[in-house]
Amino acid sequence: MGKSLTYKILEKNLLSGTLKPGNEISVKVNQTLTQDSTGTMVYLQLEAMGIKDIKTDLSAAYIDHNTLQAGFENADDHEFIKSAAAKYGIIYSKPGNGICHQLHLERFAKPGDILIGSDSHTPTCGGLGMLSIGAGGLDVAVGMAKGSYYLKAPKVLNIELVGKLNPWVSAKDVILYILKELTVKGGVGYVVEYSGEGVKALSVTDRATITNMGAELGATTSIFPSDEITKDFLIRQGREKDFVPLSKDDDAIYDKKIIINLSDIVPMTAMPHSPDNVVKVSQLDKIKIDQIAIGSCTNSSYTDLMKVAKILKGKKVHEDVSLVISPGSSNILKMMADNGALADLIAAGARILEATCGPCIGMGQAPKSNAISLRTFNRNFKGRCGTKNAEVYLVSPETAAVSAITGYLTDPSTFGNMPVVEIPEKFHVHENYFIYPPKDRSNLEVVMGPNIKPFPINEALNKNIYGKVLLKTGDNITTDDIMPSNAKLLPYRSNIPELSKYCFGTLVDDFCNRANEYKGGFVIGGENYGQGSSREHAALVPLYLGVKAVIAKSFARIHKANLINAGILPLVFKDKDDYAYFDEFDDIKVNDVINSLENELLIELINKTKNISVQLIFEGSKRDIEILKSGGYLNFVKNHAY
Amino acid sequence: MGKSLTYKILEKNLLSGTLKPGNEISVKVNQTLTQDSTGTMVYLQLEAMGIKDIKTDLSAAYIDHNTLQAGFENADDHEFIKSAAAKYGIIYSKPGNGICHQLHLERFAKPGDILIGSDSHTPTCGGLGMLSIGAGGLDVAVGMAKGSYYLKAPKVLNIELVGKLNPWVSAKDVILYILKELTVKGGVGYVVEYSGEGVKALSVTDRATITNMGAELGATTSIFPSDEITKDFLIRQGREKDFVPLSKDDDAIYDKKIIINLSDIVPMTAMPHSPDNVVKVSQLDKIKIDQIAIGSCTNSSYTDLMKVAKILKGKKVHEDVSLVISPGSSNILKMMADNGALADLIAAGARILEATCGPCIGMGQAPKSNAISLRTFNRNFKGRCGTKNAEVYLVSPETAAVSAITGYLTDPSTFGNMPVVEIPEKFHVHENYFIYPPKDRSNLEVVMGPNIKPFPINEALNKNIYGKVLLKTGDNITTDDIMPSNAKLLPYRSNIPELSKYCFGTLVDDFCNRANEYKGGFVIGGENYGQGSSREHAALVPLYLGVKAVIAKSFARIHKANLINAGILPLVFKDKDDYAYFDEFDDIKVNDVINSLENELLIELINKTKNISVQLIFEGSKRDIEILKSGGYLNFVKNHAY
Repeated sequence: MGKSLTYKILEKNLLSGTLKPGNEISVKVNQTLTQDSTGTMVYLQLEAMGIKDIKTDLSAAYIDHNTLQAGFENADDHEFIKSAAAKYGIIYSKPGNGICHQLHLERFAKPGDILIGSDSHTPTCGGLGMLSIGAGGLDVAVGMAKGSYYLKAPKVLNIELVGKLNPWVSAKDVILYILKELTVKGGVGYVVEYSGEGVKALSVTDRATITNMGAELGATTSIFPSDEITKDFLIRQGREKDFVPLSKDDDAIYDKKIIINLSDIVPMTAMPHSPDNVVKVSQLDKIKIDQIAIGSCTNSSYTDLMKVAKILKGKKVHEDVSLVISPGSSNILKMMADNGALADLIAAGARILEATCGPCIGMGQAPKSNAISLRTFNRNFKGRCGTKNAEVYLVSPETAAVSAITGYLTDPSTFGNMPVVEIPEKFHVHENYFIYPPKDRSNLEVVMGPNIKPFPINEALNKNIYGKVLLKTGDNITTDDIMPSNAKLLPYRSNIPELSKYCFGTLVDDFCNRANEYKGGFVIGGENYGQGSSREHAALVPLYLGVKAVIAKSFARIHKANLINAGILPLVFKDKDDYAYFDEFDDIKVNDVINSLENELLIELINKTKNISVQLIFEGSKRDIEILKSGGYLNFVKNHAY
Repeated sequence: MGKSLTYKILEKNLLSGTLKPGNEISVKVNQTLTQDSTGTMVYLQLEAMGIKDIKTDLSAAYIDHNTLQAGFENADDHEFIKSAAAKYGIIYSKPGNGICHQLHLERFAKPGDILIGSDSHTPTCGGLGMLSIGAGGLDVAVGMAKGSYYLKAPKVLNIELVGKLNPWVSAKDVILYILKELTVKGGVGYVVEYSGEGVKALSVTDRATITNMGAELGATTSIFPSDEITKDFLIRQGREKDFVPLSKDDDAIYDKKIIINLSDIVPMTAMPHSPDNVVKVSQLDKIKIDQIAIGSCTNSSYTDLMKVAKILKGKKVHEDVSLVISPGSSNILKMMADNGALADLIAAGARILEATCGPCIGMGQAPKSNAISLRTFNRNFKGRCGTKNAEVYLVSPETAAVSAITGYLTDPSTFGNMPVVEIPEKFHVHENYFIYPPKDRSNLEVVMGPNIKPFPINEALNKNIYGKVLLKTGDNITTDDIMPSNAKLLPYRSNIPELSKYCFGTLVDDFCNRANEYKGGFVIGGENYGQGSSREHAALVPLYLGVKAVIAKSFARIHKANLINAGILPLVFKDKDDYAYFDEFDDIKVNDVINSLENELLIELINKTKNISVQLIFEGSKRDIEILKSGGYLNFVKNHAY
């Protein structure tokens, strides 16, 4: 039976488990990447593990998120990551070098290898035939420390591309079209694997645009074959040695298959406020635009930006439009400074920003009130741009550039001849923003500024646990309720004690005080506890505050995993009606919890205040139980060779 | 008796008064400029005046301060200023176009004319022989509305430059040297007028660096003659028609005169935390540098940045240094993109920021904790960079560039041959970031987003005034105490109601509530009330809150003027010991205040609560009394043709 490309790569790297969808497996991690907003926590975790060397072939730490540096916190984070990179043998990319995914694709991605990264758009390198998975910070830290990664073996969805793209239609339109077809839930549980004749018409950076935004399908990752086009890209990047040809077997079996005819696709846009709210640009009325933002890990390649420059050459950005452009990497910016394209963009009236994520993650360039903002980015969630009542449309670079001239959302195919961009024979490559780890790494220490606090470590699970009910919540509490994130709190991602003051801040003012007064305790939750963002901090902050268990009617999947990783017991009521027997500040107790977990028994929860006892269930794997007994994943990793 | 250049220009533009140092005069205002952080208030004031057209030859509204756009407030401010510019016939410069002073020098400054600007570095255009004065926002609004400006006729300090600059020594070293000689108080009450053979060795942008940083001498402004070098600059900018030759009379008489031999000057640095804390770079030990920032209205000209590019070409920015460069204008950036210099800077590892003020005003690029930051800027006050414990050294672009390579503060003259930069035959000039006012300006309305609130208007002075003592302060209260300014409050510069919540926030929590409860009232102050920054908001916010008079032992000069402009009576105790007879929440009253002011009588203040009466003095001019009677400068201007 023929194999998919995905399963070939998983098989090559399999360390444990049986390769069958749904099974827990572990695979070798060849490379890792981090960015700064998640990276500080990753390196704090690495530091807490007490390791000396990383086990990956290559790990890179990029600074691309918080480069505005509104206060000392950002620069302190950069310095901390730089020092940790030197200590552990990790490549450090200075701010200004570019966006992690674009740089990793240019410099380090390898077909057939496995990359995990602490950023949801890590799948970008799937454009080069690398299996590239976004993961939690602790997973990435363990990936470096142990060289391995645990995941559920995915199903594989094959998208066969046939036909050819029309003029003025590009990779962004393809992924928007797919999002329209599959929706933001269509990829959940799958790796999306592209094949077919249509693949040959797409450059590596086109492919990377598609795999990048596969994150919006909810997919584990997306991947393209490694072929002559891949080889050609690597040669032009001076990395021919990294090439291996890779593709699915001719008779590969897939869990699901879709055929898409590229010639069916026209310029598309994702309307507010979801990446799958997609229509043809031509379907919309003349919408006046206030701001246009070009860049991000989705659309900031040399080819993308050169197309924009060619469209804008000799033209003028409309008076009512603020056009901002953030290049993907300093290499791209340098090439465009050399060939005159950057001068053309400036002359047209564009604002050239640093080579960073910038406006895509709301770091600056918040548009005006009620603005219409056109963006070549990957997400148009309400408020993500920094202005709550703005309306963001996602489009291709071509649509963005043409609309910058006209001042309204414009189908670029109405604009005459499409510009042709040649891929440069040699991509510019410079190393001056990279810091490679020193040969002698003995006696190096990490530099922790006053905003950087150590990672909180849990204790091994006690036989009996008891304390106060610190909080009782309703249903559908989100990780944003548990640990709010906003521009004010973002600089404290590496400062759990500071963040802890705002824990459960949308529900009560004094959770932190309660936890301090009673030296930790319990949270009682309703249905779907911990839904929303995968935010690790929603488990780490309760860990810091001494929360021993969350007892709920049901849990959201990722948050439950984060609780286990933090060493906090996620327990559910056997009878949901028992939720009613618990109130805030009740004294409660669980006896003999380790024995119950190990023997898969019901767990008895005693409400001493009300003199009632109810039954709880733990739903998880043997490995989960071992992690909880260790007091979290970090202790587990330290204690186990596994 | 020969005349100074300064007095020739004042004489040409004199509208009222006698031209003699210390006399109040008014002069014709030919041009005005605003930037966005002060500009919103200026245009709110213009709006409140209800005028139709401006009276200047040319007024320009630049966006260069708040371009990070962390929230909708900044972009709303931009939109408001853009709409006000269109309505009143003002040239609007879009964000990304560059720094107001650099752009004004390139595009609009005229020898012999008078410019007032709502920014303390307005004297930059003095490098082109224009009398260019930084002024309060209301003065600039009145300048536009009435075409005139009131000031005390200044004394003139002549600095005669002789000799020639040594290699690696540049204009920045000259002004640092002068600051060392004269200190930050040395220019107070003076216009600094440059002359002598040494002037001929300085380009227009060199001269502009020197006049720009004359602001740090406390001078009213600084000015250079308009000569062949000025003409040459204007020709290369395509503005030959704007040239007129201008210089002092040979036998000009000055209030003070200094001779400086340029050949005595070596590379200088202003050490933390004052621009006059100046030493030779060579005097200092090898100081390791964390951050280097090049740009600002002081040092961001084409020549400055080209020197930096030539020094860095083929070199590498030191691993431990974050080098950020903000160009002065989009024209400069375009020229450097065209000629390869920008590519050289990127290849070396520099971070290229937008053409804005950026890090100079603490808008981003805050260095790490305890950092040493080398900056080509004009101010190194503690905390201004955004990091309270950072140490900022001010240097020339040459010293900055060489230090970026070595990683420590380095005397550039140790670095081999100095690069030579040719002034381009034709400066690049593009208009795509400028919006010129439309021909038909009827029916245009200003666009005020939710963060922009109307300018508060006072009422004409009542015969009798009475109310509660809302606050009693100690001595030396600063404008930072009265109206705190920080990164959190800066976005509310155009929102007086929001700011009012924080009024006197360093002293009491509830001043705003007190004022609201008692519908305004009085403030009792000690000595030197209102010292520090010239912040207009420290008067406008109390006006908004209904403060009728401040009664103090003594006032700081500028704040007193701002109180008068706001229509708030600044009164002093005849006997300072009477301060003791007043407590917070006492009911107090002044009878017949208009009569007392008009007839220069002592003013009787009655404490009804304590049944005591004391005597107060008003110290001010006839014009001040008229302004107070009108209820502030804005009403005065509306009511008087003057």
